[in-house]
Amino acid sequence: MFVVFEGIEASGKSTQAKLLYERLIREGWGAILTHEPGDTPVGKKLREIVLSEPMDRLTELLLFLADRREHVMRVIAPALHEGKVVLCDRYLYSTVAYQMYGRGLRKEFVDELHTEIVGNIFPRRVYLLDIDVEEAFRRKKGTLDRIEQESLAFHQRVREGFLDMARRDPVFCVLDGKEQVETLHEKIWGDFHRFLKEEK
Amino acid sequence: MFVVFEGIEASGKSTQAKLLYERLIREGWGAILTHEPGDTPVGKKLREIVLSEPMDRLTELLLFLADRREHVMRVIAPALHEGKVVLCDRYLYSTVAYQMYGRGLRKEFVDELHTEIVGNIFPRRVYLLDIDVEEAFRRKKGTLDRIEQESLAFHQRVREGFLDMARRDPVFCVLDGKEQVETLHEKIWGDFHRFLKEEK
Repeated sequence: MFVVFEGIEASGKSTQAKLLYERLIREGWGAILTHEPGDTPVGKKLREIVLSEPMDRLTELLLFLADRREHVMRVIAPALHEGKVVLCDRYLYSTVAYQMYGRGLRKEFVDELHTEIVGNIFPRRVYLLDIDVEEAFRRKKGTLDRIEQESLAFHQRVREGFLDMARRDPVFCVLDGKEQVETLHEKIWGDFHRFLKEEK
Repeated sequence: MFVVFEGIEASGKSTQAKLLYERLIREGWGAILTHEPGDTPVGKKLREIVLSEPMDRLTELLLFLADRREHVMRVIAPALHEGKVVLCDRYLYSTVAYQMYGRGLRKEFVDELHTEIVGNIFPRRVYLLDIDVEEAFRRKKGTLDRIEQESLAFHQRVREGFLDMARRDPVFCVLDGKEQVETLHEKIWGDFHRFLKEEK
C-alpha cells in the first residue's frame, strides 16, 4: 500500500507522515517513510541544486521529475514489490500544485510526463494537510529556501491547486492542518485502517 | 546564426568548433563558443551528476534536458538575440542519438519534450564529425566517464543514430572525422561561408 502526504510548507504533513510510520512500526507492520525531493543519491544532489540555484521554471520541473524517477525506480517500486507500506512525504501532486498551479506550466505537459515517469505507481490514499498561507508563514522558522521565498500569491495558488485536485480526485483525504497533532493523527489512523481492511 | 557540432566522443567536433570560433573572431565576427552539457551554473552541477552517478535512463534524459533548457534560456537565445554567431558543441541531436538510438527511449517522447524545451531555437547548420567507434576508442585517453564506459555496441548505435538523422535532415553536413584537422576546418569554413552569404 502506497500512501502520500501533501500540503504547503509547514502544513504539518511531515509530522503526520512520521507519526503514522511510527505507529505502523510499533504495530509490527513492514513500512518505509520516504520523501521528495532528495531520498536517493542522485536526488540528494538535485535537491540541493533545485532549492538554491536560480533557474527557469521548466528546468525546475525537469529536475523535480528526474528526482521522482530515481525515487520511484530505486525506493518506492522495490518497497511496494516487497509488500511494504510506503509512506511518502510529497509526490506528483506537489509538482502539479507548485509547477502548474504555482508557476503556470501546462497541465497536459506535466500529466504526459508523469505517465512516462511513474508508470502505474499511484498512491491508494493522499492525506492533504490544508492550512492557510498566513498560518504557514507564521509557523516557518529559520532561513527560507528558493521556493519558500516565493510570494504569498504564489503559495496561495499552490494551496488552491491542492484543494482543486482534492475536489476532483477521491484518492484525497483533506484534513484541517490547524487541528491538534494528535487529533489529526487519530483521524489519519482511522481512515488508513479502513483502507487496510478493504485491502484484505 | 546558430551552428552545432555533433559526433561521438573523440570525433574531433570540439576541435573543429574551436577552430571555426577562432577564425570568426580573427575576422571580426561577434561569436560565442559554447557546449552541452554544463555551460551554465546549474548545468555545471548537472554535468557532474550525469557523468558520474549511476541512474535510470529516463532520469538521465531529464537531466540532459534540464541542462539544455538553462543553456537555451541563459546562453544561446540571448546571444542570438544580440546578433552573434553561436557555435555549440553538442545540442539536441546528441540527446536523440544517445538516449533514443543508444538507450532505446521512445522518439515521440523525446521529440515532444524538445518542442517545449527549445521552442524555435534550432540551428541553421549541424556539422557531424563521423568516425568509426574503434577509431574513437583508440583516440580516447585517460579515465572514461559513465557514458564513455558504455559498450562498443552502445556507441555504434549512437553513431548510426547520428548518420540516420543526417540522412533525413538537410540541416546536417557530414564530414569524415579521419581527415586532417586543417582539411576539415577548410571544408567547414567553406560551407559556413556559403551559408553566411545566403543570410545576407
